[in-house]
Order: sequence, then structure tokens, then C-alpha cells
Amino acid sequence: MAESIRIFAPATVANVACGFDIFGLAVDNPGDEVVLTKRDDDQIVITEITGDEGKLTKDPEKNTVSVPILRYLEKLGIKQGFDIKLHKKMPLGSGLGSSSASSVAGVFGANKLLGEPMATGELLPFSMEGERVACGAAHADNVAPALLGGFVIIRSYEPLDFVKINTPENLYVSIVHPDIEVNTKDARIILKQEAILKKIIAQTGNVAGLVVGLMTDDYPLIGRSMTDYLIEPNRSILIPYFNEVKETAISNGALGASISGAGPSIFAFSEGKETAEKVGQAMKKVFNQGEIDTNLFVSKINQSGPRILD
Amino acid sequence: MAESIRIFAPATVANVACGFDIFGLAVDNPGDEVVLTKRDDDQIVITEITGDEGKLTKDPEKNTVSVPILRYLEKLGIKQGFDIKLHKKMPLGSGLGSSSASSVAGVFGANKLLGEPMATGELLPFSMEGERVACGAAHADNVAPALLGGFVIIRSYEPLDFVKINTPENLYVSIVHPDIEVNTKDARIILKQEAILKKIIAQTGNVAGLVVGLMTDDYPLIGRSMTDYLIEPNRSILIPYFNEVKETAISNGALGASISGAGPSIFAFSEGKETAEKVGQAMKKVFNQGEIDTNLFVSKINQSGPRILD
Repeated sequence: MAESIRIFAPATVANVACGFDIFGLAVDNPGDEVVLTKRDDDQIVITEITGDEGKLTKDPEKNTVSVPILRYLEKLGIKQGFDIKLHKKMPLGSGLGSSSASSVAGVFGANKLLGEPMATGELLPFSMEGERVACGAAHADNVAPALLGGFVIIRSYEPLDFVKINTPENLYVSIVHPDIEVNTKDARIILKQEAILKKIIAQTGNVAGLVVGLMTDDYPLIGRSMTDYLIEPNRSILIPYFNEVKETAISNGALGASISGAGPSIFAFSEGKETAEKVGQAMKKVFNQGEIDTNLFVSKINQSGPRILD
Repeated sequence: MAESIRIFAPATVANVACGFDIFGLAVDNPGDEVVLTKRDDDQIVITEITGDEGKLTKDPEKNTVSVPILRYLEKLGIKQGFDIKLHKKMPLGSGLGSSSASSVAGVFGANKLLGEPMATGELLPFSMEGERVACGAAHADNVAPALLGGFVIIRSYEPLDFVKINTPENLYVSIVHPDIEVNTKDARIILKQEAILKKIIAQTGNVAGLVVGLMTDDYPLIGRSMTDYLIEPNRSILIPYFNEVKETAISNGALGASISGAGPSIFAFSEGKETAEKVGQAMKKVFNQGEIDTNLFVSKINQSGPRILD
């Protein structure tokens, strides 16, 4: 097995307009380079950093390239040291995922040198630890596309749930970096004062997840994406037994359930007619036990809209 | 041409969990029925309403079935009267798009009886006028799927922009309607007090639109979906010349432009490498004229992530 390896990891565009904290994509260039060489001991040593104008620390517990490697080795229980050379080939603090590229390149290279004990996707949580060092929080919207390539939707952070989608073959990205500095941490603080933002992020993640689930016949993704953080909590208090009906739907096999329109009807999605019937009967029973009469409808999605009857 | 026609239009589930005001789907049942018969004069007369427990008016300027027909005939400049029979076959105020089904059935039937001077999709604005009568605002999340069938994303209300997406063949919907009344208008008032909600709706519409645009190679849809209502207005004030750079990108042929991550980099999407290069140079020039040095990168979306260099 090789003793040394040189890795490129790409710059990334996070947020991508409307997808704050949930969308990210990788570009062909720029990107960072990392050279890893096995040591005879178990030390992680950053021997050289170029292109950072002296801004980055060589302390392995504080640098974004080494922290993911340390956490990865701890998880595997492997005692293997590395010399690390980090070549920053893009501007720092530029909004191009500079720290993510380094995080990804390091742990990706270590995994290769150790014979790939983990699949590439499994490296994401370790790369995110590099982001935590760089910006104070373990974001995935740069790291995920840097690691996986392509356009990635982070549908949820807790638990981490992401999906890479197909994008048009002929779609190009033009990025211009003005040589001024905006501190990512400060930029986030401006926004994070409103608690509502957390809910919006969770919501938009689900919006995107639901779209992809529907378009790709991914039933589990559809189910995971069916939580409404913004509207349902307010509206559902107007509907007696709402929580019980929803829980009953899910415990009977529904993918998820929510309010239909402004309510009071409650709908559930299920895979297959048999489950849908069972779910409907169970939901109905909750209302009926509460002495509320119900109508029950079970249907496919109607693909044609109105039709002439005769 | 037929003198009389009987139309079914389906019930719909709006919002669909996380898609407040932007997602809607049609079901096979229940639905409303409307019988239209041509008159010898130009009067619109509602001759019969069943299934409404006497709640609905027969005033053609106030009933959800007749208002879309009136607006549609005005638009066409056609003077043709109809007798209308409306058979409500689903509960009113149930969150199942009862008013939308009636709105759609009426104008769909009138269009058929007149030899289809408009395509079905063109009937949407008229059906929405029926919604305005019913709930005080011209929402499309029930009307659009009732008219077009399937799962519809309302990407934007002003201007109206919607897309119907493919959904899994075996996906079923179970809906239970509890026999209690929640007034849609009141339920909306609870939510609409916060101005933030309008932005969230526009944002989530764009989230979904962008996903669909990317997955279906729909470049114009990608472009239309690239407005960030929530984050960019706050963050862009930290970036000098932001608005000018963005406008320049678009006027040079970019699909759209926004901040990369927390900035200060700005990215643009373009169809094709030539446009992307031109857009990048134009963006760069704005910064440079403001005496700010820049780096420019033009790239495809990277589909593979990190790679070994040698």
C-alpha cells in the first residue's frame, strides 16, 4: 500500500440562493491540496502550510485538515501517524468552502492510505468536525458536496440526512471572489438571533427532500420529509385529537401525516393501497372514539384533474 | 357541439406538510359535480345546489362555481349564458379544497362546451377567482392540482409560476375528515400576522422550484427560482457592489446570481461555458472598477468530489 498520497478537494458554493444551510454544490476549481505521508509513529504532524499567508495554525487539534483525521482514527481505533502538507489554493474566508475542502481532503486521503476501511459517504461526520473548528458549528452544506461532488441537499441536520441530485449536464457556475474579508462567524451571528431561522432551515430542507422523494420514488425520504415546523404546530391546536390521529397513522404504517389545507381534515401518505386503507381506518377510529363523526377517503394521487362524466 | 355537460373535479390536499401555500395534490375521490347547460341568452343562472345544507348562495357574482365562468367569458368577450347545477359531494370547510373543486369544474365545463378556446392550464387564473370569493384570497395550491391533476408546486404567486411533478406510481393518500368546522379565513388570519411568513412562502417556493429545475434540466425554472428572500437581503449589505454585480451577471446572460456561502464571493449560474465566461468577466469588471481585486473561477458542477492527484 502507498505510503504517501496527494489529494485535491474542491471548492463549494453553499446556500445556492434560496437554500440557506440546505443546498451546496462542488466546482471543478479552485480547490485545496493535501499531501499525506505515513509516519512510523502515531503522531499527526502538520509539517507545511502554503497559501494561507501565515494565518492557519499547525496545532493538529485546531487545524481543519487534521481534526477530521484525528476523530476518524479515534473512531476506527487505529494508531497511525501522518505528516500533513496543506496547500491552500483558494482564498480563505471567501465563501467558497475553503475550510471544508481542507477537511475533506485530509480525511479522504487518510482513508485511502489505510485501504478504505470506510466508504466515502461515511467520512462526512468527520469532515464536519473540521467545519466546527473553522466556523464554530458543524455545517454540512460545504462539506457534503466537497466530499461527494455534485449538488447536495441537506434535508436534515439532526439526524444528518442528505441527498445528491442530478443536475443539468450543461450547467456552469461562474464565481467571482472580491478580495475583501467577511468573517463567517460574524455573518452567521447577524442571522442566528431569530429562533425562527432554525425552523425555516428545517422546513426548507423538508421541502426539498419531499420534492426529491416524490420525483425519485423514494418512499422513506418522502416520509422523513413530512414534518411541518412552521404551520402545523399552530394550526393543529384547532383540531381535536390531532396528535393522536397523526401518531396512529404512522404507527399503522403511514409514511407521514399532516393537516390537509387549513384542516380539519388530516391526510396520511402510505406506500400501497392496503396500508392506506388500514391507516385510514385507524385514523377514523381515533376521531370516532372521541365521539366525532368522520368521512374517510382513500385514493391514489389523481394525475388527470377534472374529467367529463358522460 | 353538446348543449349540456356534466363535470367532476377532484378534491385536493394543499400544503402537504412542509409546503405551506406552495404544494398541492389531487385525489381520485371525493370531488364536486357540476352540470352546465347552454342557455339561449347570456345569463349565468345557478338553478340548483345540492349537498351544501343550504349554505351556498345562488348569486352568480358570489358563488365559487359561477365567478370563474363570468371572468372567463368576459376575457373571451363571448356572450353565452349557462344554467348551472352544483352538486357538492364533499364536506364544506374541510380542508379538502371544496371551493376549488367547484371553481374548476365550472370553468372547465364552460370551456369544453365552447369548443375549448383555451388550454386547460390557461383556466387557472379564472379558477383562482373562485377561491378569492370563497376565502378572500386567490390561492392556487388547491385550484392548480384540481385543474391539472397530480402534485403541483406553486413556485411563485406574483407572477404565477407552477410546475407539476412526477410522483411515485404506488403512492396513496388516506384522508380523514372529522365532522367539525374550522373557518379557513380565521385559520389564515392566525398565521398571516407575521410578515415573515410571506417571505418564507416565496422562499420555499423557490427551494422546490430550484430542485425541480435542476432535476429536469429546466434552465429557465432554475433561473426563476434563484431569488433568496430571507438571507441575501441581510448578507448582501456586507458586500460592496453586490447589487451591481448581480444585475451585471443577469444582464450578461446568467440564469441568476447570489452570494456563495456567507460571501463575499458571488456566484452565477449560466447555461453553457461561453456565457459563463462572459458573465464571470462582467462580474469581475464591476469589482475591479470599484478598485477591488478579484479571483474569477468558471466551472461545471463537479460530480465526483475529491480525487487523487497522482
